[in-house]
Amino acid sequence: MIKTAGYRIPKKTLVAAARGEPVDDSRIASGVEDGTIVVLENTRRRGLVRPVAVGTGLRTKVNANFGTSRDVGSLEEERRKMQAALEAGTDTVMDLSTGEDREGMLRMVLEQCPQPVGTVPIYGLACRVVAEGMPLKSLDAGAFIEAVSAHCELGVDFITVHCGVTLEAVRHLDEQGRVAGIVSRGGSFLYRWMRATGCENPLYTHYDEILKVAARYNVTLSLGDGLRPGAIADATDRPQTCELIVLGELVDRARAAGVQAMVEGPGHVPLNQVEMNIRMEKEICKGAPFYVLGPLVTDIAPGYDHITSAIGGAVAGAAGADFLCYVTPAEHLRLPTAQDVHTGVIATRIAAHAADIAKGLPGAAEWDRRMSAARKKLDWDKMLSLAIDSPLACKIRQSSQPLDKKYCTMCSELCALK
Amino acid sequence: MIKTAGYRIPKKTLVAAARGEPVDDSRIASGVEDGTIVVLENTRRRGLVRPVAVGTGLRTKVNANFGTSRDVGSLEEERRKMQAALEAGTDTVMDLSTGEDREGMLRMVLEQCPQPVGTVPIYGLACRVVAEGMPLKSLDAGAFIEAVSAHCELGVDFITVHCGVTLEAVRHLDEQGRVAGIVSRGGSFLYRWMRATGCENPLYTHYDEILKVAARYNVTLSLGDGLRPGAIADATDRPQTCELIVLGELVDRARAAGVQAMVEGPGHVPLNQVEMNIRMEKEICKGAPFYVLGPLVTDIAPGYDHITSAIGGAVAGAAGADFLCYVTPAEHLRLPTAQDVHTGVIATRIAAHAADIAKGLPGAAEWDRRMSAARKKLDWDKMLSLAIDSPLACKIRQSSQPLDKKYCTMCSELCALK
Repeated sequence: MIKTAGYRIPKKTLVAAARGEPVDDSRIASGVEDGTIVVLENTRRRGLVRPVAVGTGLRTKVNANFGTSRDVGSLEEERRKMQAALEAGTDTVMDLSTGEDREGMLRMVLEQCPQPVGTVPIYGLACRVVAEGMPLKSLDAGAFIEAVSAHCELGVDFITVHCGVTLEAVRHLDEQGRVAGIVSRGGSFLYRWMRATGCENPLYTHYDEILKVAARYNVTLSLGDGLRPGAIADATDRPQTCELIVLGELVDRARAAGVQAMVEGPGHVPLNQVEMNIRMEKEICKGAPFYVLGPLVTDIAPGYDHITSAIGGAVAGAAGADFLCYVTPAEHLRLPTAQDVHTGVIATRIAAHAADIAKGLPGAAEWDRRMSAARKKLDWDKMLSLAIDSPLACKIRQSSQPLDKKYCTMCSELCALK
Repeated sequence: MIKTAGYRIPKKTLVAAARGEPVDDSRIASGVEDGTIVVLENTRRRGLVRPVAVGTGLRTKVNANFGTSRDVGSLEEERRKMQAALEAGTDTVMDLSTGEDREGMLRMVLEQCPQPVGTVPIYGLACRVVAEGMPLKSLDAGAFIEAVSAHCELGVDFITVHCGVTLEAVRHLDEQGRVAGIVSRGGSFLYRWMRATGCENPLYTHYDEILKVAARYNVTLSLGDGLRPGAIADATDRPQTCELIVLGELVDRARAAGVQAMVEGPGHVPLNQVEMNIRMEKEICKGAPFYVLGPLVTDIAPGYDHITSAIGGAVAGAAGADFLCYVTPAEHLRLPTAQDVHTGVIATRIAAHAADIAKGLPGAAEWDRRMSAARKKLDWDKMLSLAIDSPLACKIRQSSQPLDKKYCTMCSELCALK
């Protein structure tokens, strides 16, 4: 039993979280104790959700986002995307809905999703401000904390809270300047609120209240990076690094309060800065699990950002990032379709698996060994069934039938393996 | 003027090769002199081909393969694939045809392709052996050299010659064993010939003859890695490394003979071994340009091997690989379609560009800066025109029209950039 401030993680949860990992529940328990592992499971969803552990020594995890926007996406469409993400093997999902009936959508997700669910609670607030034309000044700090509490109470397993977007961090942003400015919706909303009111970030000033409600429901805090770079030219700059320092402080305070915390990271980062970014987080945040978005290693490939982020994600994972948020081919262009979601999850799982092999995670390379042994034997049934996306691999092979079924149409009887 | 044994590289060629590079023709000339740069241009194609320089300090280059197999692909289909590769921005192509009328196909490619063209001359020999049921023993060393000479004379700009598959290297292969054995068609053919005849690799024993004909037409030798790993479990093993040592020797001999040479590399390599593989080549082969196939960082993703290889290729390029051979989504499943070719070239160009940014290649990140500046301004026309695959980016955006054209359907009016 791991004691957090308001909650004990039961043995059953730890055992379930150890399934498919190269470690047992006692190792997960000790990781939770020292803060290098988080186990995603809201107490309200105990028994309904498959707890997922994220952190040092574990499989690199994958998250898939979906959710309505004002323009497109219905509850039914987003449910299909959730299903696509789960079928493609995502470890967690985040419902980032900003369209109508956000609560109805979230309730559906929490009821139907067997994997941990995350949200960004203040999106709802931002939507109301826009929809109702509310002046930002009329929002008080309490509204932010209420939004956070509401999601914890609904059963969300992990929440992104951009507590590190402090006045000091945005001072660096304003003074330094940037090519792409702020690209986080939460970060941008907080920035505008702070500039409108002159006040400090309420998620920072009222952090103790957030800790209290998170502890009550064992909600894992995902300390958001509202000032993450959205252009490789902005990577590892003063605002980003200043925010990271604040997140390091907040990790300490979460641990002291018995609240599980992980840290979110960039974003757009050139390949030569990816490892450094992971190592910085691991040092400054004392080994807290690192949850990265990409990183995308170039800005010039809209339509292919599942690839630009798979490159960055694989390198990040190999360097110690624990959790990869997927990016789909739709990134920078539109709300993803179910097909985009599928492609995004598979590309990110490839990156995570490549990272696990590189890190020498026990057992990770065994899948590859079995695939390659099947290739050597030209055992097509086995190759196709072992493929990460078996239906797609079958479809591609079937589309181009070799004369001799032993081979494929690339080399036919010149096959080097025969 | 750079003097090679039988040929002088004219100033005009060097100037053309410097186009689009961050260096001038004199730097390319000195790179050719010290063997760290090759300029691909057969004397027979002078004026017809756009010379491409590959090597240290230059843009990371991309090659696209196509060509018929016995089972599928007609001259017309392969011409369309060549066109697709060129339109997607490949720097070079290789015609790897193994179907009928290989010479007719190659003549068409050499006539119509404005970029350098490579081949694997001994494929023709392998095809004849299979088609005519010839016993391998009946092939003498001369047949191998004739095949090589014929392609040099036809005008091919660079040829893969698997000279390093020596008896010593294959002894290591047999004694060590492997998960996937030999996966290079050329390597496998030579292995079988050597095992059938008991003789040393004719491309090794008759290397001086190859050097002579290569010098005559300024054909660049691409010293093939017939024993490259085809499974991550086989990466950086004794046979692969033994072959690399031989290639190092052959680079020296090529330089002494005034012949341009680059070295081919793997293959399937786990992410944590990619940089080491590049550094090994650069040391053992004294800075010769390194031309890698992928590397694929996992074996389990047929249908997505343009992604597994973009991950490896980006890391390889950042570590110093100079030339990336593309891999398409069809790899391990079928002969690629024109659409596969397009996707493969774009994915590989993304990897090459990410590498160039990481290496700090002068000017490389400027493209990204302009894209991100356009994003910041929500200048959609500019974003779409700067995209590496502009038609695809336009298509994705058009498929999901935002209510307010200023935004996209992902965040609509919650856009962080507004």
